[in-house]
Amino acid sequence: MNVQIITIGDELLIGQVVDTNSAWMGQELDKAGFRVIRRTAVGDVEKDILEAIGAAINCVQIVLLTGGIGPTKDDITQKTLCKYFDSELYFSEEVYANIIHLFDQSGRTVNELTRAQAMVPRKCTVIQNKTGTAPCTWFEKDGKILVSMPGVPYEMKWLMTNEIIPRLKKKFGRDIFIRHKTTWTSGFTESALAMQLAGFEEQLPPFVKLAYLPQPGLIRLRLSACGKNGEQESEQVITALNEKLHKLIAGHILATEDKAIEEQMGEALLAKGLTMGTAESCTGGRIASMLTAIPGSSRYFAGGVVSYSNDVKRRVLGVSEEDLSRYGAVSRPVVEQMSAGAIRVLGCDCAVSTSGIAGPDGGTPEKPAGTVWIAAAYKGKVVARQHRFAGIREMNIVRASNMALLALLELIRKA
Amino acid sequence: MNVQIITIGDELLIGQVVDTNSAWMGQELDKAGFRVIRRTAVGDVEKDILEAIGAAINCVQIVLLTGGIGPTKDDITQKTLCKYFDSELYFSEEVYANIIHLFDQSGRTVNELTRAQAMVPRKCTVIQNKTGTAPCTWFEKDGKILVSMPGVPYEMKWLMTNEIIPRLKKKFGRDIFIRHKTTWTSGFTESALAMQLAGFEEQLPPFVKLAYLPQPGLIRLRLSACGKNGEQESEQVITALNEKLHKLIAGHILATEDKAIEEQMGEALLAKGLTMGTAESCTGGRIASMLTAIPGSSRYFAGGVVSYSNDVKRRVLGVSEEDLSRYGAVSRPVVEQMSAGAIRVLGCDCAVSTSGIAGPDGGTPEKPAGTVWIAAAYKGKVVARQHRFAGIREMNIVRASNMALLALLELIRKA
Repeated sequence: MNVQIITIGDELLIGQVVDTNSAWMGQELDKAGFRVIRRTAVGDVEKDILEAIGAAINCVQIVLLTGGIGPTKDDITQKTLCKYFDSELYFSEEVYANIIHLFDQSGRTVNELTRAQAMVPRKCTVIQNKTGTAPCTWFEKDGKILVSMPGVPYEMKWLMTNEIIPRLKKKFGRDIFIRHKTTWTSGFTESALAMQLAGFEEQLPPFVKLAYLPQPGLIRLRLSACGKNGEQESEQVITALNEKLHKLIAGHILATEDKAIEEQMGEALLAKGLTMGTAESCTGGRIASMLTAIPGSSRYFAGGVVSYSNDVKRRVLGVSEEDLSRYGAVSRPVVEQMSAGAIRVLGCDCAVSTSGIAGPDGGTPEKPAGTVWIAAAYKGKVVARQHRFAGIREMNIVRASNMALLALLELIRKA
Repeated sequence: MNVQIITIGDELLIGQVVDTNSAWMGQELDKAGFRVIRRTAVGDVEKDILEAIGAAINCVQIVLLTGGIGPTKDDITQKTLCKYFDSELYFSEEVYANIIHLFDQSGRTVNELTRAQAMVPRKCTVIQNKTGTAPCTWFEKDGKILVSMPGVPYEMKWLMTNEIIPRLKKKFGRDIFIRHKTTWTSGFTESALAMQLAGFEEQLPPFVKLAYLPQPGLIRLRLSACGKNGEQESEQVITALNEKLHKLIAGHILATEDKAIEEQMGEALLAKGLTMGTAESCTGGRIASMLTAIPGSSRYFAGGVVSYSNDVKRRVLGVSEEDLSRYGAVSRPVVEQMSAGAIRVLGCDCAVSTSGIAGPDGGTPEKPAGTVWIAAAYKGKVVARQHRFAGIREMNIVRASNMALLALLELIRKA
């Protein structure tokens, strides 16, 4: 069952707001067996909204709108929907009661603008929004469905989870089946991996697709079975293909779930009851930041040292001053001493360290920008390796961070 | 000048990737005087890509594509562009030379698939991508322009900044007069600021708009004069309006240039010849990461300690064990000792520190999730303040990071 998402609001077009709603909706719909084939973002402009709705209704059965139904002047979605469905707005006592209830809870009084939120189109089913004042409206016409929701993420999420997806499932049952299998790989360039898998891809049945989702230093592979065939068949086919895929890239598989490298790191540490630390120079705290972005990371992340200056490498991590001057900060001995120092100073079980030239400046003929030494240490063992990245500063930092986590992940998994 | 952005990739539709590219592009285009009127995301499906391009070309003059030009089989944008522009692919020696150069830098050898990236459509201008192997292609037909770029964010950003926007300005610049004046403010909620400026906004001439660009804890105000009137007039009008604006929000102005808070921090430190350090708990290295993302930050950033566990707060930063157990990690004495400890341990002139509950878990009735203590220390002076943020984990971390930099910025500016 094909779906199109239309997000409405000038703020999306000039980039004031990153559209995270669409991604979340895409994930939830995909899980529920509905397939988003297009997403469109338009401004608060009647003509553009009408065009987008018309185009969507023509090519899919389900159209989901978010945004443009707030109390302020610039929000015109309700009026525009009346125009499209040849309807008019009326004052809904039911919606108003919900607004009053919400305001009572937070001890606020309803003003004119908010009261106007109870004006809804006649030719639709109103779905109460228990999390906000803007109502959700559900239109049906010629077998097509259009649903208008607020753009406020948690209101939209509440409505999708509790109302829209259950209603869509009830209405359309399960005409289409989608199954995804994700595999994280490392040690390949995208093109090398694609060549390795060329034959495999050729033999894929028409309803199965293989997608490459590269990140700096890592590649996520996603097998998707999508079609009219039965649930069980899809499941069997993709499971068999996934096993075949794993044989083809044996030794390069990082994870077989759709989890970021920092999540994989966390789970590996929890499984072994270990704590880790970081000693970062060129990555400048990014590794620690990635790890601590995950709720509950305090169970396995002790802390880190961002030893940006040589002075901090020496005084906090105990890197030898002699080695610093003899080999330079971007060198094996320094990065090895950094990770060992992190374990000692932070009192953790294992650690990663990075020292390199992120660029654009600071490079030399022997050590050009993009040269990064990475070390991982666990149980008295330190593995260090030099990398040569060719990217811009931001990319080199991300890649070095991923590679550092990868190095430790492999070290503790082997141990 | 109207623009439509088309992003290509199944991963966008099923929400495996959040489309941050479009937001960034929207901001940069808006700054340059181009108006994004629609954004569309489609999968790696020829029919859908052709439909999206056709619809876009019909309603705007400039169409920007990202994604779908990798070396792998699922990437079909180049082929599809050939179909749309009735062209065919040829092997570009120039593109291949760039690929070879990139691979040499990172000591890799080019394989068949990567070599195939040098296959580009005939009927276009090829723009070299100095940051990756996928070339950027620029098509012109019937006065309309279509540009295809990689979806990899840093590659797209490099191309937009260094090639596409300059070329679009050169081509259409004469038709556009746009002047922006940006002001960074703090200490307002968006609605409070909007009410404060309501009168000012009403009196703006039709060719001037005021945009609110909120970030966690900060609001960027952008005055834009845009229209067919002369350059000089635009300049005079917007300068006068900007002065008026500054009077209205006097005392809340952080910066009058369009510079991120971490850049402002860096410039303030350089101006005074100071070095800084960080002691981060709940922000988990994000502040250090923000600062070190800026080229040349080693001139003023000494380093940081991510003291996630109490043990690290104690052993590395010398926070009193007694205070940790008496007041808890999220408290004034602890955050004060963290920043003082950072200066002592890292040997820098000033420092910021954070300790809080980012959430979603870990909150208590007295200290709910979102409670964050922030301190800034300089010249023996320590300023600490408790904040109550109500966002999700990620937002709380970003907000705390911004507020910490803001606290130190104010402290050293006053000094």
